[in-house]
Amino acid sequence: MSENRRFLLVRRPQGEPVENDFRIETSPVPAPPLGGIVIRNRFVSLDPAQRGWMDDAESYMPPIALGDPVRATTVGVVHASDNPDFAVGQWVMGLNALEDYSVAMPGGFTMAIDVDAVPSPSNYLSALGAVGLTAYFGLVEVAKPQPGETLLVSGAAGAVGSAVGQIGKIMGCRVVGIAGGEEKCRRLIEDYGFDAAVDYKGKDHEALVAAIAEAAPDGANMVFENVGGAVMEAEVFNLAMHARIVLCGLIAEYNSEEKIGIRNLWQILARRGVLHGFLIADYADRFAEGGAQMAKWLSEGRLRADEDVQEGLENAYAAFMRLFSGANTGKLVLKIA
Amino acid sequence: MSENRRFLLVRRPQGEPVENDFRIETSPVPAPPLGGIVIRNRFVSLDPAQRGWMDDAESYMPPIALGDPVRATTVGVVHASDNPDFAVGQWVMGLNALEDYSVAMPGGFTMAIDVDAVPSPSNYLSALGAVGLTAYFGLVEVAKPQPGETLLVSGAAGAVGSAVGQIGKIMGCRVVGIAGGEEKCRRLIEDYGFDAAVDYKGKDHEALVAAIAEAAPDGANMVFENVGGAVMEAEVFNLAMHARIVLCGLIAEYNSEEKIGIRNLWQILARRGVLHGFLIADYADRFAEGGAQMAKWLSEGRLRADEDVQEGLENAYAAFMRLFSGANTGKLVLKIA
Repeated sequence: MSENRRFLLVRRPQGEPVENDFRIETSPVPAPPLGGIVIRNRFVSLDPAQRGWMDDAESYMPPIALGDPVRATTVGVVHASDNPDFAVGQWVMGLNALEDYSVAMPGGFTMAIDVDAVPSPSNYLSALGAVGLTAYFGLVEVAKPQPGETLLVSGAAGAVGSAVGQIGKIMGCRVVGIAGGEEKCRRLIEDYGFDAAVDYKGKDHEALVAAIAEAAPDGANMVFENVGGAVMEAEVFNLAMHARIVLCGLIAEYNSEEKIGIRNLWQILARRGVLHGFLIADYADRFAEGGAQMAKWLSEGRLRADEDVQEGLENAYAAFMRLFSGANTGKLVLKIA
Repeated sequence: MSENRRFLLVRRPQGEPVENDFRIETSPVPAPPLGGIVIRNRFVSLDPAQRGWMDDAESYMPPIALGDPVRATTVGVVHASDNPDFAVGQWVMGLNALEDYSVAMPGGFTMAIDVDAVPSPSNYLSALGAVGLTAYFGLVEVAKPQPGETLLVSGAAGAVGSAVGQIGKIMGCRVVGIAGGEEKCRRLIEDYGFDAAVDYKGKDHEALVAAIAEAAPDGANMVFENVGGAVMEAEVFNLAMHARIVLCGLIAEYNSEEKIGIRNLWQILARRGVLHGFLIADYADRFAEGGAQMAKWLSEGRLRADEDVQEGLENAYAAFMRLFSGANTGKLVLKIA
């Protein structure tokens, strides 16, 4: 391939992204800059966080500039190199973009990876990537589970949620997952070993609060929050005293122009809960440690890391939208070569 | 006086309490039970928390039963005793009720106090009471101020808020208070030594966010939250990275049937803030320590504890409502004898 297809953001989405917010543009394959490399991307991570980067809002990262390719973590192979530490053919991962070829400078997020240690190079985007490490550090280091405690996980059938629940089981907790639909709830129990699953679909507020209370009769000592909004409110009505809430994601809000938040903060006060805003970037200096633990659990068969691998850069928009339709089962990855 | 006037809750308030939610009833002065005492209450604490106890909602304390007197912390004198540790005439404080005479059993919250150590016995309801100790432990132990940090206090001219701000100054912080009206803001600066004051009145969301940003240009490292709702949302848009939020009270919500909460939880996520639900009851075993520190600052003139002393049990309703009209300046106390 002598051309570089790039999936550009050309308009800021209003609410749910539409196809015309993006455009695929073809340009020549770049050459490595002084001391840099060019990566042939093979697998591209598709994540809810990318939706946030498309808004013109200050956050933990600058917005994606209009006309730039959509920022993404990728796994690929060094295609051309001006750096002696990165030989052509070396597998690497890094924060690049949704494009065939990315230019990267060593010293940033770019790092060499050992693809022989895992079943698929894409595992570096799931169990050993931001998703797996988010689950690991968010649960182990922020929530600090104790054996016998009850852990409530929202978005439980998603990539982060399913890993959180499984790690909770490894650490001796009672794990209750919240997910949308019977099939997802079945997977929580049968595929991931959760103790109980609550289907939020078709339930109003009272019914959802009651269903969680039934699944977690002593209340939740920990909540791992991926969703926000109505689901989070129902969880917060089920806190045990001194509960820890890991605020990891708010996918219910990412496409809504009116932000929702929660109305029952007073429950956090009454239960003396602690809510921690959590981003995996703060644990960057411990990624190797977390990745090694996840690889060990994976190789021991104690952890299952499902991936939803879609194919083709030309299908980037449709694949990305699977995040919001609830269609994806497991970590969403786009294989582009 | 040979009768016991009692201020009863006879109907659960819908939103803002009205006079007919209460009734003053007269009954005989009780006799001490076996091993117990009867207290002649002199000063009664009036607090926003009492409004919460009037709702039929599980919280950190059971609701006040209909027909019971309104639960309150009181300071008084032992009137009759069947307990050798509590002589008649001894000053005591405890969690009793809004009534002339309360029956109390040692071993609960009831404790002897030394009124000679303070200018007025009512100080045990302000600087040395729940208000002062809430400010002390919430700021010192939960927020853990570091010199040079910025502390944002809502409800800053209130009893808790003004103490929090003064302790923040003692600990070397830049202290910004939010209060309603010019006069309160003047008091924050002139009476309590705050570095800056923001008047929330007459400001829409954007204007309030901007006014806080101007007063706290590096963002708030700590937020001591007494108010909730729109004020809290504006604060949360002004968090510094890794800010600590002490969720101490939500007075904006106590009289609203629709709870408000905050809509910008995502800001806490992006800033990796930590929000702590806080109730002073968790520090009961350290009250002596906190009280001694507050008494020391008070006696050194480093801390000013204003009290709004209203008079007469017959004025209980009107006095209580001063909490919500913003009329009270300093800790609200009802002197009933």
